[in-house]
Amino acid sequence: MKAAIIGATGYGGLELLRLLTHHPSITVTSVHSFSQIGEVMTTPYPHLSTFISHTLEEVDVEGIAKEADLVFLATPAGVSANLTPSLLEAGMRVIDLSGDFRIRKPFIYEEWYKKTAAKEEVLQQAVYGLTEWKKSEIATARLIANPGCYATATLLAAAPLVKNGIIEVDSLIIDAKSGVSGAGKTPTSMTHFPEIHDNLYIYKVNEHQHVPEIEQMLQEWDENMKPITFSTHLIPITRGIMVTLYAKVKQEITDVTLQQIYEESYCHSPFVRIREKGVFPSPKEVRGSNFCDIGTAYDKRTGRITIVAVIDNVMKGAAGQAVQNANILAGVEETKNLHFMPLYP
Amino acid sequence: MKAAIIGATGYGGLELLRLLTHHPSITVTSVHSFSQIGEVMTTPYPHLSTFISHTLEEVDVEGIAKEADLVFLATPAGVSANLTPSLLEAGMRVIDLSGDFRIRKPFIYEEWYKKTAAKEEVLQQAVYGLTEWKKSEIATARLIANPGCYATATLLAAAPLVKNGIIEVDSLIIDAKSGVSGAGKTPTSMTHFPEIHDNLYIYKVNEHQHVPEIEQMLQEWDENMKPITFSTHLIPITRGIMVTLYAKVKQEITDVTLQQIYEESYCHSPFVRIREKGVFPSPKEVRGSNFCDIGTAYDKRTGRITIVAVIDNVMKGAAGQAVQNANILAGVEETKNLHFMPLYP
Amino acid sequence: MKAAIIGATGYGGLELLRLLTHHPSITVTSVHSFSQIGEVMTTPYPHLSTFISHTLEEVDVEGIAKEADLVFLATPAGVSANLTPSLLEAGMRVIDLSGDFRIRKPFIYEEWYKKTAAKEEVLQQAVYGLTEWKKSEIATARLIANPGCYATATLLAAAPLVKNGIIEVDSLIIDAKSGVSGAGKTPTSMTHFPEIHDNLYIYKVNEHQHVPEIEQMLQEWDENMKPITFSTHLIPITRGIMVTLYAKVKQEITDVTLQQIYEESYCHSPFVRIREKGVFPSPKEVRGSNFCDIGTAYDKRTGRITIVAVIDNVMKGAAGQAVQNANILAGVEETKNLHFMPLYP
Amino acid sequence: MKAAIIGATGYGGLELLRLLTHHPSITVTSVHSFSQIGEVMTTPYPHLSTFISHTLEEVDVEGIAKEADLVFLATPAGVSANLTPSLLEAGMRVIDLSGDFRIRKPFIYEEWYKKTAAKEEVLQQAVYGLTEWKKSEIATARLIANPGCYATATLLAAAPLVKNGIIEVDSLIIDAKSGVSGAGKTPTSMTHFPEIHDNLYIYKVNEHQHVPEIEQMLQEWDENMKPITFSTHLIPITRGIMVTLYAKVKQEITDVTLQQIYEESYCHSPFVRIREKGVFPSPKEVRGSNFCDIGTAYDKRTGRITIVAVIDNVMKGAAGQAVQNANILAGVEETKNLHFMPLYP
Repeated sequence: MKAAIIGATGYGGLELLRLLTHHPSITVTSVHSFSQIGEVMTTPYPHLSTFISHTLEEVDVEGIAKEADLVFLATPAGVSANLTPSLLEAGMRVIDLSGDFRIRKPFIYEEWYKKTAAKEEVLQQAVYGLTEWKKSEIATARLIANPGCYATATLLAAAPLVKNGIIEVDSLIIDAKSGVSGAGKTPTSMTHFPEIHDNLYIYKVNEHQHVPEIEQMLQEWDENMKPITFSTHLIPITRGIMVTLYAKVKQEITDVTLQQIYEESYCHSPFVRIREKGVFPSPKEVRGSNFCDIGTAYDKRTGRITIVAVIDNVMKGAAGQAVQNANILAGVEETKNLHFMPLYP
Repeated sequence: MKAAIIGATGYGGLELLRLLTHHPSITVTSVHSFSQIGEVMTTPYPHLSTFISHTLEEVDVEGIAKEADLVFLATPAGVSANLTPSLLEAGMRVIDLSGDFRIRKPFIYEEWYKKTAAKEEVLQQAVYGLTEWKKSEIATARLIANPGCYATATLLAAAPLVKNGIIEVDSLIIDAKSGVSGAGKTPTSMTHFPEIHDNLYIYKVNEHQHVPEIEQMLQEWDENMKPITFSTHLIPITRGIMVTLYAKVKQEITDVTLQQIYEESYCHSPFVRIREKGVFPSPKEVRGSNFCDIGTAYDKRTGRITIVAVIDNVMKGAAGQAVQNANILAGVEETKNLHFMPLYP
Repeated sequence: MKAAIIGATGYGGLELLRLLTHHPSITVTSVHSFSQIGEVMTTPYPHLSTFISHTLEEVDVEGIAKEADLVFLATPAGVSANLTPSLLEAGMRVIDLSGDFRIRKPFIYEEWYKKTAAKEEVLQQAVYGLTEWKKSEIATARLIANPGCYATATLLAAAPLVKNGIIEVDSLIIDAKSGVSGAGKTPTSMTHFPEIHDNLYIYKVNEHQHVPEIEQMLQEWDENMKPITFSTHLIPITRGIMVTLYAKVKQEITDVTLQQIYEESYCHSPFVRIREKGVFPSPKEVRGSNFCDIGTAYDKRTGRITIVAVIDNVMKGAAGQAVQNANILAGVEETKNLHFMPLYP
Repeated sequence: MKAAIIGATGYGGLELLRLLTHHPSITVTSVHSFSQIGEVMTTPYPHLSTFISHTLEEVDVEGIAKEADLVFLATPAGVSANLTPSLLEAGMRVIDLSGDFRIRKPFIYEEWYKKTAAKEEVLQQAVYGLTEWKKSEIATARLIANPGCYATATLLAAAPLVKNGIIEVDSLIIDAKSGVSGAGKTPTSMTHFPEIHDNLYIYKVNEHQHVPEIEQMLQEWDENMKPITFSTHLIPITRGIMVTLYAKVKQEITDVTLQQIYEESYCHSPFVRIREKGVFPSPKEVRGSNFCDIGTAYDKRTGRITIVAVIDNVMKGAAGQAVQNANILAGVEETKNLHFMPLYP
């Protein structure tokens, strides 16, 4: 496959470049930007030297279509809603890393994103690209809405609980922590080093735009699922997300059973690793890789389950999952060029 | 008052030295250690130069009693249980920064601490030193059990909810994050820089030894309160704790009412600052100071309250609260020598 | 004395507020900003709550002069050059934290700052406020040019070498490292957390604007001193500067003699602490305080001296030294309200 | 080739495992440790899960020799001096990541390492594995002394200056900064998070054990080279080294000429990337990769050159260069399995 990347200068776009270098089945034909057209990629990003010699090009749909059959959109919310119809019409497949095609109902998108939603007919074509649970739909998709970083970790952690009807439907609370790269490449007060270093923020409590895509997926799995409580924290690390899920069991369970359910749920998923019972993962154990590592525990005193999932937000939370989905589109193994070890320490 | 510090070389002990320098009513007469006897304090701790000229002395109760009328114990769990009876008999008052006298029932201490509890007759004398809610008992105490760092933040955040009967008694979940200084001064794998830097750990899920002192206090406020779900995280900051409390309301409430309850609860507490409704504090906003800053929110969709409290674990979570309690013992304003600004940024 | 602060919302201005709170001889009468006029200080800076109730005011020289007799200018380069003449005419004393009045020769200022210099007649009135070496001139100054952060550390480290003619005049190399707060409060790509965290930059090699004030002072001490080699690094800490000086001795020396020269040079300087011979300080040992700690070593193999000095750039490198100078202006002890311990750890 | 790793649980050993996973020409047959024999690697290192299923074995030379033809020694100083002779006798090739075989003269090793040197006849066999400058000798070596991390960066930066006789032979000063992983995996006070976080240390000034291997190589290139001034700093990053070299030119040069010399020196070195003239690299631009990136500048005012080189200390400074050398031993391209991009951000 031949792929173009639109939004190549953000953290997601740069990571796509890393993952597609030396990829045996997918070649990057061109890279595009709205603001830095004509710039050689290695000038602002010298770490790319000897790998990448592209110059940033403008976004010209016809031109792109001449060379590419797949487009990665690593653009801010609102951009792909406008751009995608013409890309699809030009016959290309699209993997959109933004939130524009994740929410099926336009009014819900507009409520949480405070932006105009994509057209409903295009929304209907989109497949939600949570690879582990949507593989067959992804294989034939023309438009893949790559899940949000928080949503990916949360849904992979919640799926076994919800699909197996283990927890009370109104009891799910998620306390999520993210590294600062998740906030993107644009400097802000909140991401200014002297402010966030040696500090952490809780933000968008119950207002984060990943809430609706999580609830939509949970309700697809169990229509009785109720709204979730969802807190997000910015912590002073660069990459990595940890989500901690708290939920009340419907009926008494053992930690052994709980553990088995998780192991079985993901026994065919090469990128989900279940820790031993009672052992919890940390983000550094997946850094730079496409893994989602999960730990489980059940507390008898309270009847509550605690599930912890970690991912690298730039990888499984964005570019890694996008390439995993592209591999499926390309008809190759989902692990192709992605099966490498975390960078530790 | 004249004070001795036992365990002066830990982070808590060193902070006591900072806070008692230039204190108008409390003078440090001697500093004691078990392992570094004879060493001049400024050799390992050059930051003390020009302030401190003490040499570390052995722990000799009679000798201490000749000079001091107050002893701060900044020692690991298990030490003060043994040492305190003789200090009390020698006529001194004791402020214990460890957990040894916080739990009233010996068997509960032994279950959570895996150590032999202090004698019950000494335990009975101990006053739990959560200053904001125990001021009158502290004033006349001979033995003060200074609260744990996590417990201080959690209880100050929970008190208005529990004392006013706002939340379901079995619904309280606390997701707590602490800086690494909370783990003490002894190097371990978990606190080794390459491991915890750019990383975070969840640890002691539902097993942290601060759980019983929190539950004991909650049940003193409302005997119907049920066991809590309590998670602790080590995050890559030096000082600072953030606790996030999630709880279900008994009946619909407004965020305005919730806010008022918090403002009224602490209107006479000089070290508790309530943020505006819906605004949450971050640890850097209290660093180096004795403040506990609190933010509140109510989510109609789920009927859940989110409360966030931040403290500096070495200050309000340890030495700061100890000096606040010592001020009350000494009959001076609780803010004496403690009313200074956080260090920002 | 009554003082106004112009530029109160930057890191230097905020630190002035911290240091002047509870100051027995200097009261802050008003705080001023160019961009946030009318805003209550505690809204963007909740850490100030319960201490500060000021609202940011516009810069109205006449109005300021009615209340204040001293003005602190904590503004970017170029602002005070314009503003200072009218402040002086209105009868106030001025302490300028920017570089506008540090360089005596306008053409040198213009070469390094790429800005128009202040008027020469005003420049002539300025006293370079390196407190330890300019105390008597500061006492009677109307305009104090508070030294740059790098310059303060470098000059305090170099003075004993240069004033005693110990080193070859063309051999001085300074490798300086600064925390990110030194870059100010405005977010940039370089200070964006994902870029500088877990990283460091070398920047402005031999082009930093503190070079000319360092060379000017060195030549005042020894007119034969030649241009210096000066490198600056941004390192992932918030506060703190370390400068390492390398220089060739004119003739063989012993480390004992070298050490004595430093101890004697600063035996009357309450904020300069000389470590034991061969022991080097680290920035955390002075954090939040006004100290400059210095370590010395002589290497026989190469005939080179290594001197290391550390300061807190926001304190001794900016606001702390400014208050130290204000104390001298006010005729009180230079340590007034400044003699507190570093925040460790 | 079949390789055994002795010392597989340190940071160097773990990185060897990462680099040899999926390596087409080198297979890891066994992993060995002195202290954790019998432990499954993934228990302490869950990030290895799904890649590594080895159990740590004792160090049994005969047993190792049955399976392996190459041994990587990632052990502390002193271990390989004893172990290597028997490994060589058993017919295996050895790549030693410690300092034991880097210094040709035993008395110099003993002076700087304060340990007994390896036997002289074994020392004579060792090839100093600075790949870029020793390729042909490495190809036929039986024992490779893999260079130290600081030494690698310093020598790659210094080579063009020294080999081309550009600088005064007694003028070389190196100010080196390293991430904390360079100090190894054993927790110490200096690497305890609350101490080094938000801080930096200068240590072993002119006493670092990498000095003699640097001077030995410099003198091999130019026998007139004099002792160097060498300072090392521990900075709060996990991986990465930056070395800054200062040196006086023998005669006037232009920055263009200087730049050309560097570009020509490394035009055939796939892992050395020269930045544009006057542009300096940062450690994050090589993190996780085997690159050494170099920037150059010449300052007319002082006649001094500034050269900056960055590497990832665990990669080009240890395991990466070891695998690069192993590739040459194995007769495959030096970039085999090593030519991947840095992890940014």
